[in-house]
Amino acid sequence: MNAALTPAQLLASLEWRYATKAFDTRKLPDATWAALEESLRLTPSSFGLQPWKFIVVNDPALRAKLRPVSWNQSQVTDASHLVVFARRTEMTEADVNEFFNQIVSDRKIDASVIEPYRQMMLGGVVKGKDAAAQKDWAARQLYIALGQLMGAAAALAVDTCALEGIDPAAYTEILGLKGTGYEVVVACAVGYRSTEDKYASLKKVRFPAARVISRV
Amino acid sequence: MNAALTPAQLLASLEWRYATKAFDTRKLPDATWAALEESLRLTPSSFGLQPWKFIVVNDPALRAKLRPVSWNQSQVTDASHLVVFARRTEMTEADVNEFFNQIVSDRKIDASVIEPYRQMMLGGVVKGKDAAAQKDWAARQLYIALGQLMGAAAALAVDTCALEGIDPAAYTEILGLKGTGYEVVVACAVGYRSTEDKYASLKKVRFPAARVISRV
Repeated sequence: MNAALTPAQLLASLEWRYATKAFDTRKLPDATWAALEESLRLTPSSFGLQPWKFIVVNDPALRAKLRPVSWNQSQVTDASHLVVFARRTEMTEADVNEFFNQIVSDRKIDASVIEPYRQMMLGGVVKGKDAAAQKDWAARQLYIALGQLMGAAAALAVDTCALEGIDPAAYTEILGLKGTGYEVVVACAVGYRSTEDKYASLKKVRFPAARVISRV
Repeated sequence: MNAALTPAQLLASLEWRYATKAFDTRKLPDATWAALEESLRLTPSSFGLQPWKFIVVNDPALRAKLRPVSWNQSQVTDASHLVVFARRTEMTEADVNEFFNQIVSDRKIDASVIEPYRQMMLGGVVKGKDAAAQKDWAARQLYIALGQLMGAAAALAVDTCALEGIDPAAYTEILGLKGTGYEVVVACAVGYRSTEDKYASLKKVRFPAARVISRV
């Protein structure tokens, strides 16, 4: 494959990105949103298990309900799109089997050939992790999706703001996820920065490379 | 900013990406690696606190030592680059102050103006989280970096493989991080797929959109 971006273009898009505080109300073009939604679905995960659901909250009334349990952050109601990231609350053999069956069907291979992979997944995620470790593991996978989404959006000249300052239990309740085997971890607003957002022009603050990157 | 990628280019690069099992020994061009390293440094994090170090392991002898504590995965020794992601083991007021001082200095603002932000960070990350929650929080931030790195690499036509199947304690020991306040969480191999990698041509397995994305 040819590179879609040059190194300089990649850096320009990451420099342009910032945690957008004020969004305007412009909506993303359908093709742009569709690509970002598909980028969520294509996110890599541990063993490929995809222990997640992505809830795209379009209903203004629901967004208004979520805002007070998000420290009243305006991004929740104002951004073009709001994605809520939910994890599987526990991983069972049935979860592994669902993915396993999809591999068998998509790749048209004999189940016996990849049975060792099924055993590896069971050992690594179901039997090898207690309930707390499974939740931690699933949350980490969601943050791969979050990181990929923010980078992808920037390359499309779309703004984002990760929303960790939310009440996950209240989100889970409001979005009707209670009892479904999924619970909310984090959210991300996606859209276009307002010309009024004073944060847009502030210098990005990062530790120097020598402080955070070492070569050995 | 103009979009650096079209939606179709974004999707093509994410479809092209896969968890590379066999790397060839070609090295990335310097400018390509420099951009990916810089993309790590620019990764967004909670409050901007950057509770991390990225260790780029270039020494073949060190890579050889890491491979046996990585289930002997060949990516550890063969890929052009190996990045190890380490988190801060605990967050103290000094950590918050270091970042706070950098904001003051980079943005040339009066500390008193953003003192409420310092208090918010202290409340959210130092006082508001016990030791286990701080570690979990820091690990999640690293996974933002991991997700952004894999997506950015794909856009540069560079292959990656996230390596969760490593022994983090052994990595921490081998890389000399013990007692430094940082500990290894995950790693990622970066380079070019081998023409021999049979996984490159397998169909990507993902649950259908209707299974993982809901719109409400």
